[in-house]
Amino acid sequence: MHFGNVIQLVKAKNKLLDRIQLPSDLRKLKQQQLPQFCEELRQFIVDVVSSKGGHFGASLGVVEMTVALHYVFNTPYDQLVWDVGHQAYGHKILTGRKDNFHTNRQYKGVSGFPKRSESVYDTFGVGHSSTSISGALGMAVASQYNGEKDKQHIAVIGDGSMTAGIAFEGLNHAGIENSNLLVILNDNCMSIDPAVGALKEYLTDIATSHTYNKVKDEVWNLLGMVSKFGPNAQAIASKVENAVKSALLKQSNYFESLNFRYFGPVDGHDVVHLAKVLDDLKDIPGPKILHCITKKGKGYQPAEEGSATKWHAPGLFDKKTGQIIKNSPKSPQAPKYQDVFGKTIVELAEKNEKIMGITPAMLTGSSLTYMMEQMPDRTFDVGIAEQHAVTFSAGLATQGLLPFCNIYSTFMQRAYDQVIHDVALQNLNVVFCLDRGGLVGADGATHHGAYDLAYFRCIPNMIVSAPMNEQELRNLMYTAQLKECGPFSIRYPRGNGVMLDWETPFEEINIGEGRQISEGNEVAILSIGHPGNFTTKARENMEQNGYSIAHYDMRFVKPLDEKLLHQVFKKHNKVITVEDGCLQGGFGSAILEFMADYNYHAEVKRLGVPDDFIHHGTQAELWRECNYDSQAIEEAIQQLVGVKKVATTA
Amino acid sequence: MHFGNVIQLVKAKNKLLDRIQLPSDLRKLKQQQLPQFCEELRQFIVDVVSSKGGHFGASLGVVEMTVALHYVFNTPYDQLVWDVGHQAYGHKILTGRKDNFHTNRQYKGVSGFPKRSESVYDTFGVGHSSTSISGALGMAVASQYNGEKDKQHIAVIGDGSMTAGIAFEGLNHAGIENSNLLVILNDNCMSIDPAVGALKEYLTDIATSHTYNKVKDEVWNLLGMVSKFGPNAQAIASKVENAVKSALLKQSNYFESLNFRYFGPVDGHDVVHLAKVLDDLKDIPGPKILHCITKKGKGYQPAEEGSATKWHAPGLFDKKTGQIIKNSPKSPQAPKYQDVFGKTIVELAEKNEKIMGITPAMLTGSSLTYMMEQMPDRTFDVGIAEQHAVTFSAGLATQGLLPFCNIYSTFMQRAYDQVIHDVALQNLNVVFCLDRGGLVGADGATHHGAYDLAYFRCIPNMIVSAPMNEQELRNLMYTAQLKECGPFSIRYPRGNGVMLDWETPFEEINIGEGRQISEGNEVAILSIGHPGNFTTKARENMEQNGYSIAHYDMRFVKPLDEKLLHQVFKKHNKVITVEDGCLQGGFGSAILEFMADYNYHAEVKRLGVPDDFIHHGTQAELWRECNYDSQAIEEAIQQLVGVKKVATTA
Repeated sequence: MHFGNVIQLVKAKNKLLDRIQLPSDLRKLKQQQLPQFCEELRQFIVDVVSSKGGHFGASLGVVEMTVALHYVFNTPYDQLVWDVGHQAYGHKILTGRKDNFHTNRQYKGVSGFPKRSESVYDTFGVGHSSTSISGALGMAVASQYNGEKDKQHIAVIGDGSMTAGIAFEGLNHAGIENSNLLVILNDNCMSIDPAVGALKEYLTDIATSHTYNKVKDEVWNLLGMVSKFGPNAQAIASKVENAVKSALLKQSNYFESLNFRYFGPVDGHDVVHLAKVLDDLKDIPGPKILHCITKKGKGYQPAEEGSATKWHAPGLFDKKTGQIIKNSPKSPQAPKYQDVFGKTIVELAEKNEKIMGITPAMLTGSSLTYMMEQMPDRTFDVGIAEQHAVTFSAGLATQGLLPFCNIYSTFMQRAYDQVIHDVALQNLNVVFCLDRGGLVGADGATHHGAYDLAYFRCIPNMIVSAPMNEQELRNLMYTAQLKECGPFSIRYPRGNGVMLDWETPFEEINIGEGRQISEGNEVAILSIGHPGNFTTKARENMEQNGYSIAHYDMRFVKPLDEKLLHQVFKKHNKVITVEDGCLQGGFGSAILEFMADYNYHAEVKRLGVPDDFIHHGTQAELWRECNYDSQAIEEAIQQLVGVKKVATTA
Repeated sequence: MHFGNVIQLVKAKNKLLDRIQLPSDLRKLKQQQLPQFCEELRQFIVDVVSSKGGHFGASLGVVEMTVALHYVFNTPYDQLVWDVGHQAYGHKILTGRKDNFHTNRQYKGVSGFPKRSESVYDTFGVGHSSTSISGALGMAVASQYNGEKDKQHIAVIGDGSMTAGIAFEGLNHAGIENSNLLVILNDNCMSIDPAVGALKEYLTDIATSHTYNKVKDEVWNLLGMVSKFGPNAQAIASKVENAVKSALLKQSNYFESLNFRYFGPVDGHDVVHLAKVLDDLKDIPGPKILHCITKKGKGYQPAEEGSATKWHAPGLFDKKTGQIIKNSPKSPQAPKYQDVFGKTIVELAEKNEKIMGITPAMLTGSSLTYMMEQMPDRTFDVGIAEQHAVTFSAGLATQGLLPFCNIYSTFMQRAYDQVIHDVALQNLNVVFCLDRGGLVGADGATHHGAYDLAYFRCIPNMIVSAPMNEQELRNLMYTAQLKECGPFSIRYPRGNGVMLDWETPFEEINIGEGRQISEGNEVAILSIGHPGNFTTKARENMEQNGYSIAHYDMRFVKPLDEKLLHQVFKKHNKVITVEDGCLQGGFGSAILEFMADYNYHAEVKRLGVPDDFIHHGTQAELWRECNYDSQAIEEAIQQLVGVKKVATTA
């Protein structure tokens, strides 16, 4: 099997791309050379991503748009903002990072997202969706104020991102600012999963049935025809024409109703036409939107024909066959936490008909797909709309249902007020399942779930828990639906758990109750969540060297197990806390508060994410860098207890 | 002067209202009695608010809507959600709270907002805007799932609230759910300040010029006329009719583009017609919107004719003359913190042309009005759109400008991700001025700014400060614009400061530097922000009883003044922390973290907002309840140091 037409086309390997380091080089090409250049760029992306991994479909879908934008606009003077940014690989390759691009998403390598500190061409750091219109509008207003009237500001945003509230807020403000803002709607009917919502259906309608354009044409024809039937009809026609024009052109379009000039839809893969259209738009003042139809994975046949969700970030693959390379481990593997969630919620929902599943556009990433397949009427992907997801869940809860609202920790930041104001204040029964809690790895600084323990535990009524393994996750989920608990948060990390036989029978956990994992008398380690496993490893190593270590898996940051903590602090004056989250205000601080409230004095070493933004790498590399992997725990033990012998770390 | 026509109309004082405790009583009235009933209800609101205070204009504007809704719908079975809720006074009076309504917003009295714990008619707690569509949609979807197909769900939302992203997210989801949801757009062209944004202009256009309806009519006429001109024209007309219909009726409207059926605009003050329209809408399935035009302050002439902003919550007034009763204090008063902000930013912006002022719909409340009057091109009220306000500020900052983004602490919860992801991660120079930090008083649980110190200090790069008085606020603002500091937050409370001569010359404060206010050796008090004044009062009282108290105004929660803290903990083993914010993860916890990091051991008593939602009352009542007013500080001193004599508190 050979998907070779693209590859054959660029047999004369990258002869244009080799010449180009910066957009200024690109602008020396003739317009008719652009299609070839696009194919070379596309092939470069296929080459790198197939062998190094990363996001894929999105960048292939905007190759022509990327080239046309840098060809037409005077970047970096003109400000180009990529929404989300996982589609900006072509942009990165074109703007001085071609030779380093093979380090994409690797520790100390190129970031997988635009990043101001990386390049002057990356005008606005992104990662979370839907910020581009607001950011670019700020730039446009600033340029106007600074007297740079010729400066152009372009936000490239997908139809999926357009469903988030902040995008609407940005449009609504931009519509009354007369600034140089061009919004490019990259319409591929997808976010990671297919885009949802009324706006998406509306866009599809514009793009596919062409009702809008057809009506426009037909009304024009009609009016022309009418004018042949004598003065009376003509008078009416003339009078009505303006009204119809304003209705059809100004109000017949979602964007026009927000005072944007709407252009399109155009074919986002015709680079020459795109360049012409963009060049024309440069001269039109005020807020305007260009609706481009693109295809995720464009130009790479397996991705074009396969599932866009699968090809969003496929991992390594054989670029010739399109076969995704599965790392078949020799020994059986523990499951991903997300799959434990996804399968367990189905198991629980089968018995408890109050349970509903809600996710804002993370259906596949959260593995809520299992529930969607089996119980579509009880599963809601509300699109990229975290605020709505939470308040919608609150509404469900008022009617006696029990929503499990699954949001990545980093995206939960977007619904913080809704958690406080709509759920916790009303003490409604909503279970928050925070996937990707802690450091997430290659996605980097924008995506780490570092703050949730801190920002959730200050909310009254909130139960804040984190399981150490699959069994604990299942039991916490089971517990959360047994009775009316009010808001109940369960956070777990990206990646795999630690248990092969994880489908254990459900057991209720008393809310707020921790558990002792090992006894010891030299030092007590209090861990929360998955890093409990780092602790176990460190303890086992250190016990071989004669250390006596008590380990407690606290399970709950809130309420704290005060009974257990009294035992700990009555016995121990050397304590280590370990968490996969920020040290400021996190789990360790909760322990310090307990100590202060009961006037315990102990030497406490807190391990967790330091007060800094952590960049990308593998999770293991980042846990190391942040000093809370098993090696760091061993070092902390030695610091507190003293060095007994040379510890041999595994 | 006598605005008597309303009052005269209901001379037969409240003969209908006296009979009505619940909506079931209301439904016994005949339709033609409704106008009189509305006038009685309106007068009741005027009576109570003029003598007891509270929100005013909004409730007067929805008297007819309130009556029509409870008359037509089967509340509380049918679910009625009031957005924001400060307009729900009529609703409260009609739903069993008439006799207690004089306790509105008072300590232990009726809440100024709908509250589930207060009444079964309050289906969804509100206070922050724009949640009603999401909440009501959750209810509607739940009812469908629960098999209650006849149940109606109504969200009443203002045009100002419609500009927030979550409202759009809710519409976008509702458009694809076939549930019983009626959104009533209460269009009064206002939030507290006049509503802004493209959507508002669009709504005004629909409502005033009636383009939409006019075009619809004229096209119909035209098509009718065309059909007289022979078979050819008729064929075209017939063919085009459907297309035009779909364009005009389906797509010509913002809401229709989101798949809502749009009705209106209708006169929101014609109660009989409203009741008829609502009754008709009951039978139409699926998502629908009724656009009602209302007037804030309707029926009370001074409010109708005066500034809607002024009459939003006017304080006490003489209901006969419309004269607002100013409490003229005998002695001069310290200014409001908000005015210190409002005047100081103008002073700074006059010298520093990089400074821009941004607020999401809190122009008057933040006193950014001063800047808007003097520098309209540098002042932005972006509407109720906190997320956008922050990311827009980030965009401005990328171009070298220095935005001062003023958001109430409680509303900053709505832009939490934008602060982390768009500002702090990029270390952009944005100054966040958090007004209403701490307990705010009568607005109650939804509005307290209790969490910001906790949720901001866990964000890397963030400077977190709080001034103890007006001079400190000025100096922090001055400092924040002297050099590039990255994100810099300054939080201050609702209400008045403590200085009569507050317009002191600017002095730079070293970032992270606290100050010692008094020396002492028995106990050290570390305070942050305005409660430093409670501390001063307590200290002065206690010193008279022989206590020796050191007081430090830390000024910064982050970075902490470690030099000063080393001095404190080297000298003191009894320490009190005082803050106007939550004890979980707040300022006191930051002090505990410092102690743990340097292995200091001291007895620490933390005073601040406990782990509970605090309801409404005066600020003094709530500070007392939460145990961090000066009396509480005195008690804490006694607990730590021992009782010396009977302390006489002032």
